[in-house]
Amino acid sequence: MSDITIRDIAKLCGVGVSTVSRAMNDHPDINPETKAKIMQAIEQHNYIPNNSARNLKRSESNTIALLMKGIDNPFFQGMFHMFEEMLSRKNYTLILQKVGFDEDEVNVALELEKEKKLKGIIFLGGRIRENTQDFALLSVPYILCTVRQPQLPGERAAHFVAIDDVKESFKIVDYLCSLGHRRIAIITSLQEERGVGSLRYEGYCKALEKNGIKPDPGLVCYMKHNLASFSAENGYAVTQELLASGKKFTAVFAASDMTAIGVCKAILESGNRIPQDYSVAGFDGLNLTHFYHPSITTIHQPIDEMVKAAVRMLSALIEGEPCEGGQIFEARLEIQESTGPANSAVRTDG
Amino acid sequence: MSDITIRDIAKLCGVGVSTVSRAMNDHPDINPETKAKIMQAIEQHNYIPNNSARNLKRSESNTIALLMKGIDNPFFQGMFHMFEEMLSRKNYTLILQKVGFDEDEVNVALELEKEKKLKGIIFLGGRIRENTQDFALLSVPYILCTVRQPQLPGERAAHFVAIDDVKESFKIVDYLCSLGHRRIAIITSLQEERGVGSLRYEGYCKALEKNGIKPDPGLVCYMKHNLASFSAENGYAVTQELLASGKKFTAVFAASDMTAIGVCKAILESGNRIPQDYSVAGFDGLNLTHFYHPSITTIHQPIDEMVKAAVRMLSALIEGEPCEGGQIFEARLEIQESTGPANSAVRTDG
Repeated sequence: MSDITIRDIAKLCGVGVSTVSRAMNDHPDINPETKAKIMQAIEQHNYIPNNSARNLKRSESNTIALLMKGIDNPFFQGMFHMFEEMLSRKNYTLILQKVGFDEDEVNVALELEKEKKLKGIIFLGGRIRENTQDFALLSVPYILCTVRQPQLPGERAAHFVAIDDVKESFKIVDYLCSLGHRRIAIITSLQEERGVGSLRYEGYCKALEKNGIKPDPGLVCYMKHNLASFSAENGYAVTQELLASGKKFTAVFAASDMTAIGVCKAILESGNRIPQDYSVAGFDGLNLTHFYHPSITTIHQPIDEMVKAAVRMLSALIEGEPCEGGQIFEARLEIQESTGPANSAVRTDG
Repeated sequence: MSDITIRDIAKLCGVGVSTVSRAMNDHPDINPETKAKIMQAIEQHNYIPNNSARNLKRSESNTIALLMKGIDNPFFQGMFHMFEEMLSRKNYTLILQKVGFDEDEVNVALELEKEKKLKGIIFLGGRIRENTQDFALLSVPYILCTVRQPQLPGERAAHFVAIDDVKESFKIVDYLCSLGHRRIAIITSLQEERGVGSLRYEGYCKALEKNGIKPDPGLVCYMKHNLASFSAENGYAVTQELLASGKKFTAVFAASDMTAIGVCKAILESGNRIPQDYSVAGFDGLNLTHFYHPSITTIHQPIDEMVKAAVRMLSALIEGEPCEGGQIFEARLEIQESTGPANSAVRTDG
């Protein structure tokens, strides 16, 4: 497909062949500007790594399974596509395996291990566990993505990339409080599902506490079990009920951006304004939040860095190289149009 | 994971074992109500097809590669996830392979065939070809999805599922004309890309012609090459320029829903209203169009039926069973809030 070699790319960029190789393999030890230049040259000249070497490597089992819980969630879809891109650059083949809402991801992985010769496993989403004993049954390296795991003494280390969900949801709810909101509804997943929704609820409670607000159980709303979790449909249905209930509130914190989009639609459709009547905040940092009208205040997860780190860690584990146990990333509060000062008519009730 | 057998499911539903099997394999010869009942029982009781039989079957090569052009497009992502679900029910494993914007999907497939033992290939998206000679180089069965192929005498039949893009875009632009719009802008992909964008442009021209409107080249806008094709970013950037140009128009037809979302954002942000000042129409039928505010008028592609048919056709090809050459599906005009009567201040200029 292309006659250009790694040497040509190196010459074009005025660097050595090993630098091009480092750029392609996402090695941390490279100047970001040099790397950008190299990647641009690779793209421009449609350079494809030497095929015979590539095929040789591919003839071993080089399959990585990605187990995804919440396959309909654009947040996970975005991450999945980044994984696909980064792993194929490292000559891995990716198999996608969906994990059903009521399925246990470790059981699914154990089944898959029997059927396929896998090099590694990536868990995307899933529930929070008290320990990593289940995972110890797996025979290939694995990494958890977006779910943080506790490290217990004597257990095999769990490798993960995640954000601190409690801290980040504290950040956005604290921001709502700083705008004068005292009656803040939350839409999250059920506690018994033990997903990120329960951690985001914890952050919400902590922010209210810090701001001297007594949580009102009537403003804690759970996603409907018969609709896709964290979906726009769910946020829409729950918010319609909340509005119809007559409960007073001035802001909604939705545990995902897609849910927040559903919240906005229900509010706007009811003839209310955002943020003049109600503020709405989401979570995840989907690109789509910029294009909604109003654009949606959110917590921006650094998925690019997270996927890169996950791929680096998993490769190290596969190669038997030393690898850190887990990595927590800092997310960013992205203030957009959907949040503003609390509606003073309701504000005083808090 | 589950002790329930196919016999239990059959008993629970009051049907024979073969009926359960037909339901699971999407056999057309089954009453839809019976099928729904069976699928519900399967889900409720977490029934998993007999594992030893399943593993036996899995130990053969049962890998299907899905080559996706436009991996960032939620429309394709939705289809991909449907494929994943339906193929895994048939015990196929799906490998996802991204096709870059400037890559030729058949070349990518030929490379992949060398590296992997494949049972079949699904092409999702891609360009329109004058003939299917390239495809004849492939050694495994394949199916084209969303791109229709011409059948030339003497050529091996191309198997595809698609909609009639010309007819469907005619439908939505004709609808805009019926609302009194005469100055209708289009945002589509460049003709030389030979994708669905050029077919949708053709339908646009035909609708204008039918309504006695002379097309204005100034209102034919192309997506920017440096932004993702058919994305919200692209619609947003192109519409900002269109608004700044001072050209008069009362409606925009965007060649995808994501593009239409970007169009809406640029219009709303400029202080104009939808549909009072400008009508906006999209294409694809994304669920998200219901949750945008205003909800977006679109052409709803029956992706559920299309994926089912594609899986059925590909399975037949793999098994050496007779199979139709291609199938065109009827799409549906879904009128929502983003379209209304033409703004009469501009209307008279047409």
